[in-house]
Amino acid sequence: MKKTELCLLLLFPLLTFSLLSSSTSSHHDQSYLREKQELQQGRNNPYVFGEESFEYLVRSEHGKVKVLKSFPELSPLLHGIANYRIDYLETEPLTFVVPTHLDADSIIYVVEGEGAIAVLHEGSRESHILEKGDIIRVWAGSITYLINKSKNQKLKVAKLLQPVGNPGRVQAFYSAGRDQEAESYYQSFSIEVLEAALNTRRDRLHRFFASQRSEAIIKAPEEKIRAIAQHSSRSESGPWPFTRSKRPFNLLNKQPSYKNRRGQLYEADNKDYDELKDLNAKVSYTNISRGSMLAPFINTRAFKIAVVVKGSGYVEIIRPAEEKDLLKQRREHKEAEPWRQPEETGRRYTRVSSLLSEGSVIVSPPGHPTAIVASKEQNLQLVCFEVRAENNELVFIAGKNNILSELQEEAKELAFGVPAKMVDEVLRGQEEEVFLAGPRERERETEREEGGKHEKPLMESIMQVVEGF
Amino acid sequence: MKKTELCLLLLFPLLTFSLLSSSTSSHHDQSYLREKQELQQGRNNPYVFGEESFEYLVRSEHGKVKVLKSFPELSPLLHGIANYRIDYLETEPLTFVVPTHLDADSIIYVVEGEGAIAVLHEGSRESHILEKGDIIRVWAGSITYLINKSKNQKLKVAKLLQPVGNPGRVQAFYSAGRDQEAESYYQSFSIEVLEAALNTRRDRLHRFFASQRSEAIIKAPEEKIRAIAQHSSRSESGPWPFTRSKRPFNLLNKQPSYKNRRGQLYEADNKDYDELKDLNAKVSYTNISRGSMLAPFINTRAFKIAVVVKGSGYVEIIRPAEEKDLLKQRREHKEAEPWRQPEETGRRYTRVSSLLSEGSVIVSPPGHPTAIVASKEQNLQLVCFEVRAENNELVFIAGKNNILSELQEEAKELAFGVPAKMVDEVLRGQEEEVFLAGPRERERETEREEGGKHEKPLMESIMQVVEGF
Amino acid sequence: MKKTELCLLLLFPLLTFSLLSSSTSSHHDQSYLREKQELQQGRNNPYVFGEESFEYLVRSEHGKVKVLKSFPELSPLLHGIANYRIDYLETEPLTFVVPTHLDADSIIYVVEGEGAIAVLHEGSRESHILEKGDIIRVWAGSITYLINKSKNQKLKVAKLLQPVGNPGRVQAFYSAGRDQEAESYYQSFSIEVLEAALNTRRDRLHRFFASQRSEAIIKAPEEKIRAIAQHSSRSESGPWPFTRSKRPFNLLNKQPSYKNRRGQLYEADNKDYDELKDLNAKVSYTNISRGSMLAPFINTRAFKIAVVVKGSGYVEIIRPAEEKDLLKQRREHKEAEPWRQPEETGRRYTRVSSLLSEGSVIVSPPGHPTAIVASKEQNLQLVCFEVRAENNELVFIAGKNNILSELQEEAKELAFGVPAKMVDEVLRGQEEEVFLAGPRERERETEREEGGKHEKPLMESIMQVVEGF
Repeated sequence: MKKTELCLLLLFPLLTFSLLSSSTSSHHDQSYLREKQELQQGRNNPYVFGEESFEYLVRSEHGKVKVLKSFPELSPLLHGIANYRIDYLETEPLTFVVPTHLDADSIIYVVEGEGAIAVLHEGSRESHILEKGDIIRVWAGSITYLINKSKNQKLKVAKLLQPVGNPGRVQAFYSAGRDQEAESYYQSFSIEVLEAALNTRRDRLHRFFASQRSEAIIKAPEEKIRAIAQHSSRSESGPWPFTRSKRPFNLLNKQPSYKNRRGQLYEADNKDYDELKDLNAKVSYTNISRGSMLAPFINTRAFKIAVVVKGSGYVEIIRPAEEKDLLKQRREHKEAEPWRQPEETGRRYTRVSSLLSEGSVIVSPPGHPTAIVASKEQNLQLVCFEVRAENNELVFIAGKNNILSELQEEAKELAFGVPAKMVDEVLRGQEEEVFLAGPRERERETEREEGGKHEKPLMESIMQVVEGF
Repeated sequence: MKKTELCLLLLFPLLTFSLLSSSTSSHHDQSYLREKQELQQGRNNPYVFGEESFEYLVRSEHGKVKVLKSFPELSPLLHGIANYRIDYLETEPLTFVVPTHLDADSIIYVVEGEGAIAVLHEGSRESHILEKGDIIRVWAGSITYLINKSKNQKLKVAKLLQPVGNPGRVQAFYSAGRDQEAESYYQSFSIEVLEAALNTRRDRLHRFFASQRSEAIIKAPEEKIRAIAQHSSRSESGPWPFTRSKRPFNLLNKQPSYKNRRGQLYEADNKDYDELKDLNAKVSYTNISRGSMLAPFINTRAFKIAVVVKGSGYVEIIRPAEEKDLLKQRREHKEAEPWRQPEETGRRYTRVSSLLSEGSVIVSPPGHPTAIVASKEQNLQLVCFEVRAENNELVFIAGKNNILSELQEEAKELAFGVPAKMVDEVLRGQEEEVFLAGPRERERETEREEGGKHEKPLMESIMQVVEGF
Repeated sequence: MKKTELCLLLLFPLLTFSLLSSSTSSHHDQSYLREKQELQQGRNNPYVFGEESFEYLVRSEHGKVKVLKSFPELSPLLHGIANYRIDYLETEPLTFVVPTHLDADSIIYVVEGEGAIAVLHEGSRESHILEKGDIIRVWAGSITYLINKSKNQKLKVAKLLQPVGNPGRVQAFYSAGRDQEAESYYQSFSIEVLEAALNTRRDRLHRFFASQRSEAIIKAPEEKIRAIAQHSSRSESGPWPFTRSKRPFNLLNKQPSYKNRRGQLYEADNKDYDELKDLNAKVSYTNISRGSMLAPFINTRAFKIAVVVKGSGYVEIIRPAEEKDLLKQRREHKEAEPWRQPEETGRRYTRVSSLLSEGSVIVSPPGHPTAIVASKEQNLQLVCFEVRAENNELVFIAGKNNILSELQEEAKELAFGVPAKMVDEVLRGQEEEVFLAGPRERERETEREEGGKHEKPLMESIMQVVEGF
């Protein structure tokens, strides 16, 4: 019996590919990934988006800015977050991003690098040093510019945008710039109005605008970068509590909410950084060790929008199946999961799986069970924006803190149809919580413990399986 | 003159059906109802919905769950409440509703029966006895199960749902269940993820899920029901004020807001039960005695969504006529209300009438004059959810507290074109308030007072009427 | 060089019309206006709306009520204010507007005249004298009537409406009235319900409704108007602080936020009048002296909806160009602004210009640079409703308080590509703030200072210009 179990353990993911391939871990992994890749390439995935779902606003030798298409455009299941956008900025060392204002609020998270930001707000300028882990909120309409002050490192920034004008649309207004990438809005006023407004003659204006750059991200001399950086305050200084909230908040300097050898979860809400309050958002950072997984969870009220900033892995999200999907599913299930009875098809839920790599964006809607697994090669690092976060709870449905273990004994028996003890063995079989051994890791650890008996009776157990159903 | 008046009183509703039918009260009623029925069957009614507007989520020998279609789908005039849904649950004696979470907040009202509810919220379980009149809010994402603990009575529950995910859509996630009606979402994770998450081998998982039920509502042994009920608190106990708000609030134990021999109105808002606050909703219960009516009213800001839980009757809602309706109306008016001058057609407003019976749902939008009449056979009982309730006022436009009696004397004269005294005679002719004698009841009472002189000169007065216009 | 500058200054607006026309100021003006008019007549203007965008609800010898079409219907760029409407009421001397309630909140601004308003709210009547500059909020569902108490002056009222029922739709419910313009909703109840509700016999009801007016605005005897006015309180009286907030707030009695010889800006927010709070709106009044302009500005978060109540002028709003506009723009630019290099076409932003006259409505969306210029004949007076006003800032991008002067020196140089001193000469060249000399006015003042040297070498400089590009 033990042997069969082990065989089953290894067998199923392989079945559709090659029943007789050797079961080495690396083959196993590849074929599993291949299966996942297929799912992703079907582009039917309503919750995970890759490079092809972004549009580039800026793309030059000095840096790039890309914005994720609007969520309802990406998927009809995402109308609930129609008024949020995600964008991602990457600039080369010693560059300057020209002053702009947006018709959207932003929450900025510094993924990597060293920079500074200046924000013109309420009639004055605030300048702040930016470091990895910093969160800063920029108000809609505030003119803002950025520098990458490092001599050799990129500055990478992930942003959550919340438009205040046309729902779901963000527009950038450049203060300076001649044309193309960056063009000053001044130039679009009629020349008479501009002359009068600036009290400057038109030939002078003409020369002034003609001398401007036509780039949004500019390579800058080191001394100018240094001068700008020098006027910027650090988030950790600041003896003035009343201005404190406007400074960036560093998420990684905070104690993690959960931490074990398999991963760490850092979370910031409006108690940490009160500028998050009126945006009803939370920011978190998740680091899943290679081979590990974030335990299956649900967010009770929030949409979790996660941006992969490093590493690879995959995600599984469970969603209610829609009628039109049922036929398609039925076929798939027959092949992929032959151990299911025919009468078991026409499932109530469907699994959305996707490979993850740097730049992928995952949306886990409220209530939808979700699991995230790191590949065995690299840690998987995610920056997450939880939106509509007020009163949200992150609830785990596996692991030591599995919410379902709170069911009354009788409810367990009625619901699961077996003795409560058996229910507990399954629902509380996991000793760890939040970050768990992932499928490959668990297998490796189990193998180590059991001494690799599994190679032996493979063919035999396949027959058992085939006959068994 | 008196006689003519009395004839008119009885005549008009009959005219389209049979000029010569005897005017006994029962015939009268039937034909009136027949007229109403026709209107309802036309399915042009944008504000009242019956059985055909529901969809069944569960329908078994042990109970049923039905949900009203989304309001914008039912009527283009209801986009204002697009993000609310109504559902209705009925379970047989000694049953268990399996654990589920929704991507929606719920306000539950216990219409009938005795049960208990358990909610897994903020990491722990709260269990409460449910009795008729109890209101309880269940947070989105909280895993919840219910029992009907009575040995012989159904448990009936009306719910207002407020989705937090996709606008207007509610999705249920079953923790347990094998397939079909109820299917555990666990089964939709890939087997590798599930094994790792639950730290349980796949053959064991397989057996575990195969042993589960495939029903959402389960007949349960009495001792299990009793055990679950025993661990549930009563709403009236609870010495801990800080947990009090999470307990159900019993609406019927409260003093009614209005009460007379013709009916009672019970209302609960966030001052009574603070869990209603962030949902911006109110719950009320209206009992209209047979033959009586709820005086014509408007809600100033709220949509009133009323579910008929017992009895029968009819409702009239006045709404602005839309252009496309004008032609249709013109024809109808000529027949149904011949006493109106031709130039009086092309009305500004149109009347929406509908018969009501158990299960009917009425929506009275803000500002729309509405009257609800109980049949003469039965009390009409309604559970109402007022949504967008903040700062709403319930205003009566007839009865002793008729808001229009607050008009200045000169304004009355200018507006109504007759002396203020005459205006008052009409607007303040009614001595009662809130619950009034309904049309049939009033007639009966008037008859009793006047000694039934109306049978006599019927034919004669018909001729007068016909000639008079 | 000086001469060429002056020529350029005068020349460009004329080029498309007539290179050889005499450069007198009046010709200049006309041709400029003609150009603007063309733009407006193209009806491609998504932000400025004239008479043709209104619908008349009432139009009689005693007055008129017109409502601006819904914003998304007027322009796809205005979905952000889909749930706001603008309406405008004008009544003749000694008239009465019959009692009505709306399914919308209103903010009323008295543009001109003397009247009184009565509002039936929370079970009682509040009556207030209305004077020019008064702001009053009327709650959705409150029955309201108005008088024009002047013997010779019109009463003009601008309203911002915020529907509480169907999004973007406002419906009026008349308490009184026989038909057509105004028709009492009472008449649409079935006669049985009405009899019972009002406890009044149907022949009497019949007579009662038949005697009502069929007008929404009624010419009223002076003594009745006087009687109504006498019962109305003045906003400046009121010793009861707790009822104060419900009284009108007079915007023009407040100190202006900005004031100089070129204009005044009065602003009221919820600190002035707390009834504005839950509507998240602000009201302001702008008076731009003839020949002057409101400096180019942006609102950081709010949409500014401005109604021209007197005077004429024009507005320029800068918006991001959409792809489909690019081709059209390219052609226009070649002709209208030949000094731009060909490679400068394909602009990032586009200018929306429109002539303004009494009744025009301007929408300036958040973040969009906007300038408003009064004609040289008349002051331009605007009533503005800023919606979604919370935390909004009005930011000027020209004038002494130009926000861009807050840029760090190095940022100025990097952004504008010229020495910081040169940037300051342009961005801070204007000594005035908020209200500036407009294009014509500036030219006149410059001419006066310089002694009108520009008439002389006109033909010569045209040739220079033509050759220069």
